[in-house]
Amino acid sequence: MLISAPAIASFQPPKRILMGPGPSDVPQRILDAMARPTIGHLDPAFTDMMEQIKTLLRYVFQTENKLTFPVSGPGSVGMETCFVNLVEPGDKVIVCINGVFGGRMLENVKRCGGVPVVVNDDWGAPVDPNKVAEAFAANPDARILAFVHAETSTGAQSDAASLAQIARRHGALTIMDCVTSLGGTPVLLDQWGIDAAYSGSQKCLSCTPGLSPVSFSERALDKIRQRKTPVQSWFMDLNLVLGYWSGEGKRTYHHTAPINPLYGLHEALVMVTEEGLEASWTRHRAQHDALRAGLAGMGIRFVVDEQARLPQLNAIYIPDGVDDAAARARLLQEFNLEIGAGLGALAGKVWRIGLMGYGARKENVDYCLKALQAVL
Amino acid sequence: MLISAPAIASFQPPKRILMGPGPSDVPQRILDAMARPTIGHLDPAFTDMMEQIKTLLRYVFQTENKLTFPVSGPGSVGMETCFVNLVEPGDKVIVCINGVFGGRMLENVKRCGGVPVVVNDDWGAPVDPNKVAEAFAANPDARILAFVHAETSTGAQSDAASLAQIARRHGALTIMDCVTSLGGTPVLLDQWGIDAAYSGSQKCLSCTPGLSPVSFSERALDKIRQRKTPVQSWFMDLNLVLGYWSGEGKRTYHHTAPINPLYGLHEALVMVTEEGLEASWTRHRAQHDALRAGLAGMGIRFVVDEQARLPQLNAIYIPDGVDDAAARARLLQEFNLEIGAGLGALAGKVWRIGLMGYGARKENVDYCLKALQAVL
Repeated sequence: MLISAPAIASFQPPKRILMGPGPSDVPQRILDAMARPTIGHLDPAFTDMMEQIKTLLRYVFQTENKLTFPVSGPGSVGMETCFVNLVEPGDKVIVCINGVFGGRMLENVKRCGGVPVVVNDDWGAPVDPNKVAEAFAANPDARILAFVHAETSTGAQSDAASLAQIARRHGALTIMDCVTSLGGTPVLLDQWGIDAAYSGSQKCLSCTPGLSPVSFSERALDKIRQRKTPVQSWFMDLNLVLGYWSGEGKRTYHHTAPINPLYGLHEALVMVTEEGLEASWTRHRAQHDALRAGLAGMGIRFVVDEQARLPQLNAIYIPDGVDDAAARARLLQEFNLEIGAGLGALAGKVWRIGLMGYGARKENVDYCLKALQAVL
Repeated sequence: MLISAPAIASFQPPKRILMGPGPSDVPQRILDAMARPTIGHLDPAFTDMMEQIKTLLRYVFQTENKLTFPVSGPGSVGMETCFVNLVEPGDKVIVCINGVFGGRMLENVKRCGGVPVVVNDDWGAPVDPNKVAEAFAANPDARILAFVHAETSTGAQSDAASLAQIARRHGALTIMDCVTSLGGTPVLLDQWGIDAAYSGSQKCLSCTPGLSPVSFSERALDKIRQRKTPVQSWFMDLNLVLGYWSGEGKRTYHHTAPINPLYGLHEALVMVTEEGLEASWTRHRAQHDALRAGLAGMGIRFVVDEQARLPQLNAIYIPDGVDDAAARARLLQEFNLEIGAGLGALAGKVWRIGLMGYGARKENVDYCLKALQAVL
C-alpha cells in the first residue's frame, strides 16, 4: 500500500517589489534566460559558457585570478568553500566581527579547527584598521585575516584596501565577504590584494539566489596546495572542483552543475557589462541619495554613519511606537513591497531597505517612500 | 584604471535530447515555473510553498519523516549533509562500493573522521547482502551502513530492503543514495526502514540540476541530537538548517534559499503526483523494455544482469571497434543527442543511456535507437 499523492496545485508566486537585503528584483530577461532548454554539464556548448562566466566574473571582481568561478550553492557555501580550503587545523585566523556575517565567519573558523582571534567593532560601524593592526602585532603568527566588506546585517562598508594591506604586511592571506557589495560598490580584488573572496548571485547582480561567485589568488592556491591535511568537505575541496571548473586539460566530472541557474547568472553578468561597472556604482549611489533624502524628510535615522554607509543596503531605525512586524506585513500585503527585518542584535530595532542591482531604480525609491509614508 | 568589460553576448543553448545519466530532459512546464517572479525567502507565500514541497517529497520518498526537504545544492551536497550530520569521528561505518558513488561515500566517511569498513562488489553487480551481513558479524560495533540504491555509474540496483534490514538487526542506521532511483523505480523509505536518504532533482524528477531532496528518520535525528562534537560543516549542520526548514515555530534565517529552482522542483513534484508514482515506475519499465529490445537487435550487451538492471540507467558495452568519444560527438553534433560516457573503471568501455523522468518516453527511445544505428 503506497502513501497516496497529496493534492497540490502548481505554485503561482505573487509579484513583489523586493527591497530587502536580497533576493533583489530580478529582471524578466534573466528569468527568461533561466527557462532556456537544459543541456548537459559536460556539453561543449555548456563548458564554453562556463569559461565565459569565469571571464565575466573576473570583470566584476576586477581580478585576473584564474580561479574565479561560481560555487554551486548559496553565498554560505561560497563562504565555507573559502574557509575549509584555506584554514587548516591550528591556523590562527584574525576574524573581524561588526555584524551577523562576521560572526558566521568565526563559526566557520572554529569548525575548520582554526584558532580564532576576534576583533570586535560595534554593529553599524566599519571594521577599525587600527584594531586589526593591533591584533596582528599581538599575534604575529596569524596566517589569515577574515572580514566582511559590506555587512548585510547593518549596511556598513569597511575599508578593504587598508585591511588587506595590513594583512599583507604581516604575510597573512585575506578572506573577504563581498556578498552585498559586488556590482553595487567598487570591489577591486587585485588592486586591494585580496586572496579569497565570495559573493552571492541575488544581490547587486540581480540574479536569482543559489550561486556564489568566488575568486582565489595564486597565493591562496599555494596555501591550498601545501595543505598537510585533506579539506574536510568533499564537495567544497578545490583540488577536486578544479578538475571541472579550471578549464585546463580534460574536464572531469565532479558534480552536476546547476545548469539553468548558471544561464541566469551568465545573463546577469552580461547585463553588468552592458551597463558597465562604473555606471552601476553611480546608479546605486544616486538612488541611495534619493532614498536618503526622502527618509530624512520623514525624520528617519540611519544606523550607519554617512562615510561608512553602503548605498545598496540602508539600515534605518524603526520609528518609535511603530510595530515592526505589523508594519512590514502591511507593506507586503497592501503594497507587495518587501523590506528586510533586523538581524541578530538589531532584530526588532531596524529595517533594512535594499537598493540592489535592478532594484536600484527611481521607481522603486519613489514607491518605497510612498508606501512607508502610508504605513508609518 | 579598471579592467575593461569583456564583449560577451547572451547565451542561447542548443536544444538537446538528454539521454545521459542526468540532467534528463526537462519539460517546458518546469522551465516556465522557474521563470516566475522571484519573491523573498521569508515571504509567507514562499514558506507556504516550502511546506508543500516537503509534503510532495514525503510522497515521492514514501515516508512520513518530518525532516524531508530539498538541500540547497546538488546531490553531492545532499550526500555530504547525510554524512557530516550522522558520522561522528570514530564512528565505524560499513560502506558498500559497487561503483563510483559508493567510492564517494567512502571519501565522505573518511573526511568526517569515521572508521570505514568497506564491502566491495564488482562494478555492475548489486551490493551482496551476504557480504554486508558478514561485515556486521565481524564489526558488531558498526553504527552506520551506507549504500547506493541505484548506482548511476553502472546501472545496478541493490536490494535496499534487505540491506536496511540487516543494519536494523545490528542496531545500525542506514544512509542510502537514491539519486537515480527516486521517481523512476520504487523508493520506499518507511517500508524499507531507511534512516537517511538523498537524491537529486535532475534525474527521474525531470527538474533542472542543483537541488538535493533528503529525508531523515527520527532515529537519525536522535543520533544527531546526541552528537558530542559539532557538525564540521556550518552550511550543512541540520541543527541550524532546521530553523529555516522545520516549519515549527518562527522560521529563522539560515541561508537564502534558491527561490526559482525551488519553483521548478515544486512543479516537477506536482507533475509526479499528477501521473502517480506507480504509473511513473511502469512507464520507466516499459520504455526500458523497448530500448532493450532495440539494443538486443543491434547485438549490444548490457553491463548489468537482468534482475539487477535499472530501467532508467542503461549501461551498455561499446561495440568492438567503435571510437567512444568520436561516436558520442557524432550523436551530439548530428543528432543533438546526449548519452553518457563511462565513469571511473568503466570509462571508455561503456555508454550510459538514461531513460529518466520526462526523458522516458517512446519518441526518445525510437530516436536514440535510430541515431545509434546511424552512428555504429
